[in-house]
Amino acid sequence: MPSPSLMDFQQTLQPAIETALKASFEVHNFSHSPTLKDMLVYHMGWAKNEKTGGHGKRIRPLITLLCTGACDAPIENALPAATAIEFLHNFTLIHDDIEDKSPHRHGRPTLWTQWGIAQAINAGDALFGIAQLTMLDLVKTTDEVIANQAIRRLNQVCLQLTQGQHLDIAFESEQKVDTQAYLTMIAGKTGALIALSATMGGLVAYQSQDHLALLAEFGESLGLAFQIQDDILGIWGDSKTIGKSTASDILTHKKTLPILFGLQHCPEFQKAWQKQDVSHKQVERMSVILSSCGAQAYTRSQVNIYTKKAIDALEHLFSHKNAYAQALFDLTEKLLNRDF
Amino acid sequence: MPSPSLMDFQQTLQPAIETALKASFEVHNFSHSPTLKDMLVYHMGWAKNEKTGGHGKRIRPLITLLCTGACDAPIENALPAATAIEFLHNFTLIHDDIEDKSPHRHGRPTLWTQWGIAQAINAGDALFGIAQLTMLDLVKTTDEVIANQAIRRLNQVCLQLTQGQHLDIAFESEQKVDTQAYLTMIAGKTGALIALSATMGGLVAYQSQDHLALLAEFGESLGLAFQIQDDILGIWGDSKTIGKSTASDILTHKKTLPILFGLQHCPEFQKAWQKQDVSHKQVERMSVILSSCGAQAYTRSQVNIYTKKAIDALEHLFSHKNAYAQALFDLTEKLLNRDF
Repeated sequence: MPSPSLMDFQQTLQPAIETALKASFEVHNFSHSPTLKDMLVYHMGWAKNEKTGGHGKRIRPLITLLCTGACDAPIENALPAATAIEFLHNFTLIHDDIEDKSPHRHGRPTLWTQWGIAQAINAGDALFGIAQLTMLDLVKTTDEVIANQAIRRLNQVCLQLTQGQHLDIAFESEQKVDTQAYLTMIAGKTGALIALSATMGGLVAYQSQDHLALLAEFGESLGLAFQIQDDILGIWGDSKTIGKSTASDILTHKKTLPILFGLQHCPEFQKAWQKQDVSHKQVERMSVILSSCGAQAYTRSQVNIYTKKAIDALEHLFSHKNAYAQALFDLTEKLLNRDF
Repeated sequence: MPSPSLMDFQQTLQPAIETALKASFEVHNFSHSPTLKDMLVYHMGWAKNEKTGGHGKRIRPLITLLCTGACDAPIENALPAATAIEFLHNFTLIHDDIEDKSPHRHGRPTLWTQWGIAQAINAGDALFGIAQLTMLDLVKTTDEVIANQAIRRLNQVCLQLTQGQHLDIAFESEQKVDTQAYLTMIAGKTGALIALSATMGGLVAYQSQDHLALLAEFGESLGLAFQIQDDILGIWGDSKTIGKSTASDILTHKKTLPILFGLQHCPEFQKAWQKQDVSHKQVERMSVILSSCGAQAYTRSQVNIYTKKAIDALEHLFSHKNAYAQALFDLTEKLLNRDF
């Protein structure tokens, strides 16, 4: 019988993750405030009404479970950590959507548009508490010391996330943001949480500090490569496959890596960027200008640098690959060759 | 030499609490986002500029330390828990001020009015993470099991706080709120955190589950009595001593306990409440109507019920009173006889 592939793992683990998420959520008593529970159920994509359902791919808990398996430990021991990270991620989404005034996520209205800003801030706080309580369930599958280390890492990452988000909000109103500052921002905002996902997988498998550091490096590099690849798709992606209009990051004036490169190195792009309300035709011209001044090549080179770092860390960690480790290699390749 | 009094403890412990708060805060690295640090320094009342300084009385950490001392354990062991609770309290204040659109706190502009809603939500989240990391420092003064139980209790209380806050926001737009629902709301919003303050004091002193339950009952009752006493002062308090205009809760149309009693039991008050933009003279008349229909007597009886519960719990806990226990009795009496 062949070893299970990445796709096999996705098919078996994603329903298990969803079941564990729901079970961890249901232990909490909301009898005095059922509407608060409804809000969180809606945000998590569990509302009965099909129109209001739908959620993300739960990629972070999948990474945690695969990392535990790759370290030859029982993956079920990692479920509290995997689900805690998904709750933490969703807490940040609730608050980010308010902070960025985003009206939609996963094809449906964001929480704050449905219940107001005040109740949505508060619901995010509740989910943050649930993330912490879920992580503490590690005492059942590991021990007190591991559970405390896990909670410590979760909250250190929370500080990194808020620092990344602080910079992201600040950049919106800044005229000049250099590419290095941008990389610092996404390291906090995206890299830190995927680093946590990988590290937790190793922590519950009682890995050495060296191995945990390599897992963190794998996760952070993967997160950065993924985010920068997203920036490429936001300008040169195919609108049919990525599900948003091509060059939408130029239209929405979002300061992503290729755009910041263009603003730093390309006077023609800089001039075009000043204009308000550009037409679709102008947007297309601007994406061509960006390409010809080397912004696409630069951004691709950054994706390659971080992908290589992620793969190198995996090579160091797992010279003898089991099926879980192979799936981590495949996941890394797959995420970075996506055109969706 | 006489035993130290409550005032002696306040004078020695409050500077110690402030020092511990600053030390716990300073270990965190904000080198990439110094403005986020400035925001938290401002909120905590530590800004250099005197106009922007000033903070609350740090009553919650004081309760924690006194409870530890009353259980005959070294109070310094409780410092991580005491400071964590103060950070947690301040995290809730940052978000509550946004949710309630409050422009001022401790005589200066609230965080969101200075840096905007988006950055203030995010700064609150950072302080929540700091509260958790501070609580984890209990491994240095107690052990892994206690630290783990403390973090669990902190996050269970976080869920109670968000449930209380959810109800508080919801009540604003509800026509009818009964007094029982109001008591449930303040039990979450105010009682739960003071219950945590007292319980943590006992937890670090390795008290039995029975004692911890009594400490929680003491804290919750004290919190409720304090909040309801505040509601009395908000209508019948002396403006000169409480520092806000008399009857301000009628002016701001705040649904406090005496007002809810009046709406339930007093048609004359109910009728007057419907009017928009009441004059100061009408407000005074309304407070007289409230008194004559029994709202003041009812509210005072509630203060007495919860004060008695708090004192009873203390009597059960500390039949042989040391100086710390005596200070807890005195603090309870003092808080509830205040006219400020």
